[in-house]
Amino acid sequence: MTSWALGIDLGGTAVKIAVIDREEGLLAHERHPTESQEGPEGVVSQIAGLAQSFHARFAPRLGAERFAGLGLGAPGAVDREKGMLSYPPNLPGWKRFPLEERLLETLDARYGLRCPLEIDNDANAAAYGEAVFGAGKGYRDFMLVTLGTGVGGGIILDRRLYRGPNGTAGEIGYLTVDYAGESVHAGIRGTVESLIGKKGIVSMGKEIYRRYPRTLWNEDMHGEDLQDLSPRTLEKAAHGGDAVALEVWERIGSVLGVGLAGVVALMDIRTFIIGGGISGAGDLVFAPAFRQLKHSTLPSMHEGMAVVPAALGNEAGVYGAAALCFSSLP
Amino acid sequence: MTSWALGIDLGGTAVKIAVIDREEGLLAHERHPTESQEGPEGVVSQIAGLAQSFHARFAPRLGAERFAGLGLGAPGAVDREKGMLSYPPNLPGWKRFPLEERLLETLDARYGLRCPLEIDNDANAAAYGEAVFGAGKGYRDFMLVTLGTGVGGGIILDRRLYRGPNGTAGEIGYLTVDYAGESVHAGIRGTVESLIGKKGIVSMGKEIYRRYPRTLWNEDMHGEDLQDLSPRTLEKAAHGGDAVALEVWERIGSVLGVGLAGVVALMDIRTFIIGGGISGAGDLVFAPAFRQLKHSTLPSMHEGMAVVPAALGNEAGVYGAAALCFSSLP
Repeated sequence: MTSWALGIDLGGTAVKIAVIDREEGLLAHERHPTESQEGPEGVVSQIAGLAQSFHARFAPRLGAERFAGLGLGAPGAVDREKGMLSYPPNLPGWKRFPLEERLLETLDARYGLRCPLEIDNDANAAAYGEAVFGAGKGYRDFMLVTLGTGVGGGIILDRRLYRGPNGTAGEIGYLTVDYAGESVHAGIRGTVESLIGKKGIVSMGKEIYRRYPRTLWNEDMHGEDLQDLSPRTLEKAAHGGDAVALEVWERIGSVLGVGLAGVVALMDIRTFIIGGGISGAGDLVFAPAFRQLKHSTLPSMHEGMAVVPAALGNEAGVYGAAALCFSSLP
Repeated sequence: MTSWALGIDLGGTAVKIAVIDREEGLLAHERHPTESQEGPEGVVSQIAGLAQSFHARFAPRLGAERFAGLGLGAPGAVDREKGMLSYPPNLPGWKRFPLEERLLETLDARYGLRCPLEIDNDANAAAYGEAVFGAGKGYRDFMLVTLGTGVGGGIILDRRLYRGPNGTAGEIGYLTVDYAGESVHAGIRGTVESLIGKKGIVSMGKEIYRRYPRTLWNEDMHGEDLQDLSPRTLEKAAHGGDAVALEVWERIGSVLGVGLAGVVALMDIRTFIIGGGISGAGDLVFAPAFRQLKHSTLPSMHEGMAVVPAALGNEAGVYGAAALCFSSLP
């Protein structure tokens, strides 16, 4: 008998919730602004309320006895043993919070809802979502890399999440590839995120454009100042044939490829699934990334190498959170 | 009942063999020049002969029924499933060779010796040796990094070797930390080995010394030309108080620290055991490495961080090769 679960993706600006059927995939989903102004307890209330309302709506149709549980992906470091969430970025003031315990208590005390609860880091949840329902279905081992405001990652080894001894594995954004360079993020020099996180892309782009007074950007991007340079406008300029924009994407892809090569060297993982908003630029970033990945690895390690786009977009997190409940089924 | 095994470390210049008792540790060891001029079959003959002679000498004393088997660490990529050794560096002309099959056949056909045989990459064997008998005894998870002619590594996760999906994990020497730099090794730019492998250290040292005409090296290292700069002479100069030599070691340690930080970011491993000839420089390299490791990681990941010297020196490989046989015991 198949089963269904609720998946929640907790972010700094939005809480996403979805009903995921093990066989059918996503049946329904909603997105709500995160009620973070009330602090952790306010967010716990919000999550519990959403879970209760979705459970009440779908249990009659899908079967309460088939309900596998509630999965939750959260930003920051998640200690799964203790159920603690530590210092989630974009949720200021949380520090260390016993998320699992408080959520179980609230669901039970307020709604009489007792169910299995799985919590994990959001990037891990997204990687697991791609593994079970998305671009990772055919791979035994891969790393999901998300290119967005930040650069994050989740690792699947032998079809299971690799979380590391302390639960903080997969942080490719913090990998240093340019230790002698100028870029800094979170106090660390030359990391992948310092170079090709959204801020890094914008400053890299502006720096390169300033060197070329005659470009499509400067001449034809009417109404768009260089101050408005963003991954999106860079994409537009590149599709318009601007050689400088193409050069910027070449560099973005190269930095990504060097970072992926580090994963090959250390972990012997050769498949990479790339998601996040920036990955929407497609071959502008995939082509140079793959080229650089090959340049920065030994030829003997090229067999089976692949860089492919993620398939679940922004829903990878809710898919994966729900899938965590399926994986803990007997 | 305890048991014993034979451990062999196959290198380009020497074959080391040791008798390892599970409880007592190393009981005997020998080192022989590698008979590589005869190609793979010659080396197989040599290894089989050594194994037979050690087995014949020690089985009467230690008990043939307590013999756990023969473990072999080899350079290059080892496919444990197929028993294949591929392109071992320093053993030119080997290409892909069915080492396990040929060795088992030779032991049986020539000596009637049938025993369990475990083969693995030499860096993996060394890491396992440190885990079971050396500096890694107290750690559940760690990486062994060997600093020598090359920079290699082996990873222990949850007290077992992490080999990766294709058996090539732990290659920290191929991790790129300076993608925009000048140094290149094995065709890859800015890798840890390109910077602080033996050749990298020598060229980094010479480059820095050339900028400072008045140094201990130039004035007091009578009889030692800058052409003779090596890790050993650099150590001597640093112990003599030469500020430039200290600066070179500071850089060597920093590069190592940046590389280790990459392991923390991707794998969430926080304990590092450092071996190999260059690690003999002690705090000259350990102190800056630890400092840089902390600079290049998030403060939230500093808990439990450690960089410690290896304990088994050049014997780590034979210890670990033998220990592979113990671990496969029921």
